[in-house]
Amino acid sequence: MTKISCSEDAKGVKHFIYDEVFTFEDGETIQPLHLAYETYGKLSEAKDNVILIHHALSTNSHVASHENNPQPGWWENMLGPNKPIDSNKYFIICISNIASCFESSGPLSINPKTEKSYQSTFPETSITDIVKSQHLLLEYLGINKLYAILGNSVGAMLSITWAVLYPDEVNKLVSTSSCYKSYPTNAENRALQRETILLDPEYGDGLYEEQPSRGFLLARKHALLTYRNWEELNERFVDKENKESLANYLQYNAEKFIKRFDLNAYLYQLAMMDSFNITKYFPSNLETFQRINADVLVISVNTDVLYTPDQQHDLYKELSAAGVNTQLIEHISEIGHDAFLVETPAFGCYLTDFLG
Amino acid sequence: MTKISCSEDAKGVKHFIYDEVFTFEDGETIQPLHLAYETYGKLSEAKDNVILIHHALSTNSHVASHENNPQPGWWENMLGPNKPIDSNKYFIICISNIASCFESSGPLSINPKTEKSYQSTFPETSITDIVKSQHLLLEYLGINKLYAILGNSVGAMLSITWAVLYPDEVNKLVSTSSCYKSYPTNAENRALQRETILLDPEYGDGLYEEQPSRGFLLARKHALLTYRNWEELNERFVDKENKESLANYLQYNAEKFIKRFDLNAYLYQLAMMDSFNITKYFPSNLETFQRINADVLVISVNTDVLYTPDQQHDLYKELSAAGVNTQLIEHISEIGHDAFLVETPAFGCYLTDFLG
Repeated sequence: MTKISCSEDAKGVKHFIYDEVFTFEDGETIQPLHLAYETYGKLSEAKDNVILIHHALSTNSHVASHENNPQPGWWENMLGPNKPIDSNKYFIICISNIASCFESSGPLSINPKTEKSYQSTFPETSITDIVKSQHLLLEYLGINKLYAILGNSVGAMLSITWAVLYPDEVNKLVSTSSCYKSYPTNAENRALQRETILLDPEYGDGLYEEQPSRGFLLARKHALLTYRNWEELNERFVDKENKESLANYLQYNAEKFIKRFDLNAYLYQLAMMDSFNITKYFPSNLETFQRINADVLVISVNTDVLYTPDQQHDLYKELSAAGVNTQLIEHISEIGHDAFLVETPAFGCYLTDFLG
Repeated sequence: MTKISCSEDAKGVKHFIYDEVFTFEDGETIQPLHLAYETYGKLSEAKDNVILIHHALSTNSHVASHENNPQPGWWENMLGPNKPIDSNKYFIICISNIASCFESSGPLSINPKTEKSYQSTFPETSITDIVKSQHLLLEYLGINKLYAILGNSVGAMLSITWAVLYPDEVNKLVSTSSCYKSYPTNAENRALQRETILLDPEYGDGLYEEQPSRGFLLARKHALLTYRNWEELNERFVDKENKESLANYLQYNAEKFIKRFDLNAYLYQLAMMDSFNITKYFPSNLETFQRINADVLVISVNTDVLYTPDQQHDLYKELSAAGVNTQLIEHISEIGHDAFLVETPAFGCYLTDFLG
């Protein structure tokens, strides 16, 4: 009996089914583990041209369009032939995170024991659990060294965890608008979202038939407000009414989001950020960061109110103190946290330069 | 029959009862109108030493302690003998806003028609309604010229409304961390709070017997997060746990607030800020600001994420364009919106200097 299988669907999404027990950090298990992923470019014979990209909270493995799926991806301008992340040169992998809602194992997966979706009974999932699930796939693909690993926001929490847990397997690391541990204001912004969802009487124990929308919509609007700098939003929306108003922008984008995103998955994503602290597995910050062998680029956005510049500076200082070859770029922007999605020409230059 | 009466209670709060019909902007009425206010210092014979202070959302007429009430006020270090707002020199008045919950008419007042509290049936109240209620009291006191009018945050919305509606009665105006109209991010921050309160199934139609707490607590935590700059909060609370954590700071302060504040009054306060735009009564911005005869000091705090520096700059530009004698102070701080409550030595200097 094959315990591991891999197949590809019509949209070019690859499905890695690991039919063994996968044990989470908290001791709970699932079987099988399912990872949905997409790849771009060709793996070199020496398997030395691999870039692993980590998506952020709201997205998935579809970084950019490809021949099997022409729909634009979340970093369409950044990845492709002759683009900053050049698929003529690199073999790029992006894996949909477990505990989210894009085909990889998560609250929407069927629990074989009950033959129903896990919903809120899916195991508590940590950033480390996701990294360990990804490592199983990379092992299966015979890739034991990543040329580079990239992440933005929660994606960069995954990237730095890779570089710390598998120090010999990561050559270059880019961490954009993220952190090495959960900071108080981020935790409280998430707590407000979670409590708003739980205030919705229809949420109950999370084993609902129809996904409740009121609390989720509000929570998402709250999140959307933190992704942009408020001076920029005011400038864009001042004196605009109805369809052109900020209220409508939030309503439209929050509605669009909750239609495509699973509410329980959203809560799992919030929880994994809460428990994140890459230093917790080692005796000290110094011993944590000294493990890293990769060259690191930290990108900070001056107007990011969510992952504030201080958090990027802290990361840079910890890495430098540990002797890691580190660069810090301070990106000047009006946008705030979402700058990496919007100002791709600048971010493209930073990456091209760093990837070499 | 006396239609107007004024009395003083044991704590030195004065009660102005105007037993005539008071008509709100939207056409609704109450009778009587009750204004609770406190005064500091002595009115000069020429009645030319009056400073009117406007309190912000969460506070009331108790700006500072006095002989009848030794409890510290919300601007204790700023007002008193030989303090920046010098009660040896000025006669200072602060009136608890109507539609709030501190003895002046509001949702907790008894509706004589039903002999019950108004709760959510109190008339919709605007910034202009509050200013007009205050003007009745000042007329009653025979004060027809204010030496100065001061306000912070929503208090400054009241102050500038005074200076525009009664241009011949205001000599100097200080507007701190505020705006001349509602900006999109402020409106959406308030909308999230309101919708969170309405999501609480116990709120219902606002005619509850016991004040519901879950939605209100969440809404207040949301507000508290916007009163401080997030880098400052992170620096203060990073790696702190339990009682020393940001979560506990928010919980403690939000609980304290909702115990002393009426939920309906909170919703009325949010609504009056939403509808605020001092230019709406006049054909243009220019014609609005040209009405002002007062010298104006605008104070901006560089880290204020709620009433962003742009909003202060816009106000300054509008005033300057209208030929108003205007100064802008850019206060540099780590605190954010609450700086005026925390960094009183600096704000004291600004006021002393401007009041002359």
